[in-house]
Amino acid sequence: MNPSPSLPLAGITVVDLTRVLSGPYCTMMLADLGARVIKVENPDGGDDSRHVGPFIDGESAYFASINRNKESIALDLKQADDRRLLDAMLDKADILVENFRAGVMEKLGYTWDALHAKYPRLVYASISGFGQTGPYRNRPAYDMVVQAMGGLMSVTGEAGGSPSRVGVSIGDIGAGLYATIGIQSALLKRAHTGTGERVDISMLDCQVALLENPIARYSATGQVPAPLGTRHPSITPFDMFTTGDGFIVVAVGNDALFRRLCEALDRPEWAADPRFDSVKARNDNHVALKACLDERLSAATTAHWATVLEAAGVPHGPLNTVPELLDNPHVQARDMLLDVTIGDGKSLRIAGNPIKLGTATRLDNVKNPPKLDEHRHRLVREFGV
Amino acid sequence: MNPSPSLPLAGITVVDLTRVLSGPYCTMMLADLGARVIKVENPDGGDDSRHVGPFIDGESAYFASINRNKESIALDLKQADDRRLLDAMLDKADILVENFRAGVMEKLGYTWDALHAKYPRLVYASISGFGQTGPYRNRPAYDMVVQAMGGLMSVTGEAGGSPSRVGVSIGDIGAGLYATIGIQSALLKRAHTGTGERVDISMLDCQVALLENPIARYSATGQVPAPLGTRHPSITPFDMFTTGDGFIVVAVGNDALFRRLCEALDRPEWAADPRFDSVKARNDNHVALKACLDERLSAATTAHWATVLEAAGVPHGPLNTVPELLDNPHVQARDMLLDVTIGDGKSLRIAGNPIKLGTATRLDNVKNPPKLDEHRHRLVREFGV
Repeated sequence: MNPSPSLPLAGITVVDLTRVLSGPYCTMMLADLGARVIKVENPDGGDDSRHVGPFIDGESAYFASINRNKESIALDLKQADDRRLLDAMLDKADILVENFRAGVMEKLGYTWDALHAKYPRLVYASISGFGQTGPYRNRPAYDMVVQAMGGLMSVTGEAGGSPSRVGVSIGDIGAGLYATIGIQSALLKRAHTGTGERVDISMLDCQVALLENPIARYSATGQVPAPLGTRHPSITPFDMFTTGDGFIVVAVGNDALFRRLCEALDRPEWAADPRFDSVKARNDNHVALKACLDERLSAATTAHWATVLEAAGVPHGPLNTVPELLDNPHVQARDMLLDVTIGDGKSLRIAGNPIKLGTATRLDNVKNPPKLDEHRHRLVREFGV
Repeated sequence: MNPSPSLPLAGITVVDLTRVLSGPYCTMMLADLGARVIKVENPDGGDDSRHVGPFIDGESAYFASINRNKESIALDLKQADDRRLLDAMLDKADILVENFRAGVMEKLGYTWDALHAKYPRLVYASISGFGQTGPYRNRPAYDMVVQAMGGLMSVTGEAGGSPSRVGVSIGDIGAGLYATIGIQSALLKRAHTGTGERVDISMLDCQVALLENPIARYSATGQVPAPLGTRHPSITPFDMFTTGDGFIVVAVGNDALFRRLCEALDRPEWAADPRFDSVKARNDNHVALKACLDERLSAATTAHWATVLEAAGVPHGPLNTVPELLDNPHVQARDMLLDVTIGDGKSLRIAGNPIKLGTATRLDNVKNPPKLDEHRHRLVREFGV
């Protein structure tokens, strides 16, 4: 596989021991950015996510969504021959990524000290539920555990209702994003120092980082943040409103925009109303402002108001389902959807790469997600010892 | 300001024209990683987020949470003198980041072509609602708009209930994370080519990228993804369950873990039950399995089951509120909370940096969020022309 030499990580090789989501999401990004990713899977069924549905011709769409552009080899890390092959790959690699529970790599003999001594240029990144240090370091976790422990569920859901899980695995994907940033910063440092770095990403830490605003709000006020439905806690209007035939989202973050909104709605007097004349005043009176806006917007259709707000330059939008999102002309124009082939030649549409560099917004030559052990022969020929 | 030379982005200078959240989150990460960040604010009140509550002694906790380690100068980009100062800073900078609506920088005369011609090593990153290309490129957006348009709200909330906004601004923070990855990619590429790169991040694109799993599920099945409350769509058990005195989250992603769970609950027969003996079978029968688990877990307290599942190595956890998260000994041990000073010397606790490199898990010498124009004199002395 020869990623485009114009991609920023061209020439970088990743040995990828990750499974499920957080690690594979990270290495997908590295591959999208031009790195060669060698996915090492256990011979007993491979990546757990190969067994998570839905399936097409017996192959997992869950797996296919996050494993494009990777090579696969099945290795048993307790077997001497397979370990020799792994060692040969590490000798040529720039990055090792794994997302085992903390301690598993050490038990296999792959400690940071040993790896750093043998491969001083290697960047070694670990993603785990709780990180490599601290009292919970040996505990296992999945997305759901850190979404709940990390407080994100406690601020998500209907106002006055039960906490809800975020509808995507932000516990995993968040960790994958921070891990990618950590790995790239280690590569940048290596360009100066010549030596690799240990990157230690904890899924729970990443939830804390995402929760920056509720943490600051609680610290400032002592009020426990709770689910607010569709409303922003500190900015008003920043919500979903009722129109004559449905809903529209309107988001206004400063006074100039609020004046524009009031004029577009033919209610210029609202902008001068002392209940609504600053960010703080609007937020303190969010119930009254919502009632005003719901009443006014109910007088016409969503399409009408979209045209009016568009002309006024006021941020607004519809509430899209997934098929509506996929049909959106802007999403298509931005090349945010890719088609890969899985199963017996079936096409699967998946999300693309949001990191657009230079004039190249297209990710060309996307390689299909690999079958388990698909690249064994080539990799053994290349690295066999 | 002299960030630690051991940090990976030491020596990198960022000119930061961003406001509110997506851009400031990105430049906070760059600063945490050692870059020098010069925050350029409008003289008429500065960053919009300085006016978003809650406030301490009149200063915004919203702003303080995401602007540590930055220098501030107020510049009017329509004034010749101030533009000369900006140009002098760009001449020494490695990175320019802005999150205006697409087209605003061009109107100010700062096109990519002009900037690249004058400062060939400069990496220029833009974060906008919809990106620099495509039919919606000139539309304004805030977090709420892209959470709704991007489909995330349509999969978040109570099962059968209304869609909910994710309780943090993942539309902004997500874009800030992908932007940081794009910027570091461009720096890595520059190490080879010697020239800077254009980075074009669209908040809506980033929502599509986060939505990878619902997109793949819909593509594979044609079923429109909907809110599922606290349940995972494809993995079971991966949910919140009822105990004798509250709730516990249990997450099990493979058969070996499920066997361990069943043994820990003294129900080994469940693991062999054909309704529950594979990931697919458990997910197809999620209602039955939830009933079994709720009944069994109701027989004892959350604390009891936490001890049992801990001993069995089954991923589990509590549902924490923000104060419970801040009190958590592991979060504290990981140095995920920082204290900054705002207002008349008040301390504010904020989220720390989840990117732990080497043995240094602490972010030392955290600088307080700047007052508007706080560093004018030093910056004029350094860059004045």
